[in-house]
Amino acid sequence: MTAAPAGQPFRQVALIGVGLIGSSMALAMRRFGLAERVVGCARSAETRAKALELGLCDEMFEDPAAAVSECDLVVLATPVGAYAAVAEAMQRSLAAGAIVTDVGSVKQAAIRDVGPFVPEGVHFVPGHPIAGTEQSGPEAGFAELFEQRYCLLTPPPGTDAEAVERVAWLWRSMGSTVDVLEPGHHDQVLAITSHLPHLIAYTIVHTAMGLEESTKQEAIKYSAGGFRDFTRIAASDPVMWRDVFLNNRESVLEMLQRFSEDLTALQRAIRWGEGEVLEDLFSRTREARRGVIEQHQAGSFDPREPKT
Amino acid sequence: MTAAPAGQPFRQVALIGVGLIGSSMALAMRRFGLAERVVGCARSAETRAKALELGLCDEMFEDPAAAVSECDLVVLATPVGAYAAVAEAMQRSLAAGAIVTDVGSVKQAAIRDVGPFVPEGVHFVPGHPIAGTEQSGPEAGFAELFEQRYCLLTPPPGTDAEAVERVAWLWRSMGSTVDVLEPGHHDQVLAITSHLPHLIAYTIVHTAMGLEESTKQEAIKYSAGGFRDFTRIAASDPVMWRDVFLNNRESVLEMLQRFSEDLTALQRAIRWGEGEVLEDLFSRTREARRGVIEQHQAGSFDPREPKT
Repeated sequence: MTAAPAGQPFRQVALIGVGLIGSSMALAMRRFGLAERVVGCARSAETRAKALELGLCDEMFEDPAAAVSECDLVVLATPVGAYAAVAEAMQRSLAAGAIVTDVGSVKQAAIRDVGPFVPEGVHFVPGHPIAGTEQSGPEAGFAELFEQRYCLLTPPPGTDAEAVERVAWLWRSMGSTVDVLEPGHHDQVLAITSHLPHLIAYTIVHTAMGLEESTKQEAIKYSAGGFRDFTRIAASDPVMWRDVFLNNRESVLEMLQRFSEDLTALQRAIRWGEGEVLEDLFSRTREARRGVIEQHQAGSFDPREPKT
Repeated sequence: MTAAPAGQPFRQVALIGVGLIGSSMALAMRRFGLAERVVGCARSAETRAKALELGLCDEMFEDPAAAVSECDLVVLATPVGAYAAVAEAMQRSLAAGAIVTDVGSVKQAAIRDVGPFVPEGVHFVPGHPIAGTEQSGPEAGFAELFEQRYCLLTPPPGTDAEAVERVAWLWRSMGSTVDVLEPGHHDQVLAITSHLPHLIAYTIVHTAMGLEESTKQEAIKYSAGGFRDFTRIAASDPVMWRDVFLNNRESVLEMLQRFSEDLTALQRAIRWGEGEVLEDLFSRTREARRGVIEQHQAGSFDPREPKT
């Protein structure tokens, strides 16, 4: 089996994991005619039944090896901590010329855990769509999730260029802009733009939950002043995020250290009543917002979220 | 002059400050017929011209004393740091029976700074609408800003009950739900739900801006993974927020201390690879999101923000 040329639909795609990203890919691939057949793989019988009921996949498997055997594209869409076991399980079933890609938020660990199990003649193209909502599970997916979003590909040196182009074509066809990054650099950038924001949101919500009961209830009631944005981020999938922090430890700890130093400086300015320090810093951060708006990345976290 | 009964429009309202909140109140009061006449006060000639051009106010003044003299309601809508000077300036011009209210995010400092300048026979009813966007200035206002939002009133003991009810009627008429809170308790609750989230958002955006140029540019480009929510919050008005932190110092520092302890515990769990600690904490924070959704406070920070 050889890969079809770029621009041709895949013959059969296996989605290993049908959570928010996997189910959204299934819906987008069907809508845009990007795969003749889509099969899925999930550990729980309930998820497999749900994926069939929702029409996400033509067939569902429990065993990754069975799911991938006829496929020219395999997408790892499980939490990153499961990659090594899945890659090992499907190793002997992968068809020659098949492409394996993934959608995980950390890329060095993906290469570390999947790479050793990719057979000769199979192409591994690590990927990461910068898209998501705080929802999870097969019912959370929607075909528009990737529209006007970036998808970052981080192929290690020597990766087959045609395989990279096939995966890039897939993401572009689902509405994304594709950029190629070095895996370590990806992990550093995402540590500040995504991993640290999630860690902080989880922390502040946890801090609020630790207050006395009446204050805690009022924090929820009067959340519109900023807190509700943090509760949304802190409702993200716990296992997925556990695996992100465990697998991007060095970059997250580095960014966390920088953040803590900056926070301590602000704390000191508040304690000593240094208004100029505060105003100056608060003025400079507006520059970042202008950049985000210019990049057309200013939209709400979940485009389907009901408006107030 | 005596106050009109609850349910009757105010005869003339003075808005001291026509930023996001002041201009939104002007528009809402006009739309819902809550004031026969609305006048405004702004220090800069440009803002005064803009407010007239936008039809926010019937007349604009530079001097607070001139603005308030014919009014049965005066709304302080400047940054909190300006309250004492404004209250002193208008002290001798306030009409007997007039109500003075404010919209500031800290309430103990409002009472401390305004209270001493409120003449006998004038009623001060401190208030705080839990509503806002990251936009500021007279052009940022919109009449729907307060709909389905809470407005908290924090009258000190002995405040005239009819005056409180008049102000409550005003906010209800603009679409808000009114709750009465003790001022110190308000400041503590808002420290965790609004002041700390803003401080943290400013800090993380500042941290990102301090990275090397290429990483910084990519942080903005790939902001959709969480960072963009922080850039939105960190684009809020610098002077208003400077004054919030300077005037709610004790509560903010207390919440910041609790947050830092919780963050250090998570940092340690990441460093030592304690996956169970992370997953357990990330699971518990989902509870807060359910509470926010049940309270119908889950909407986007700015209801007018364009959808992706």
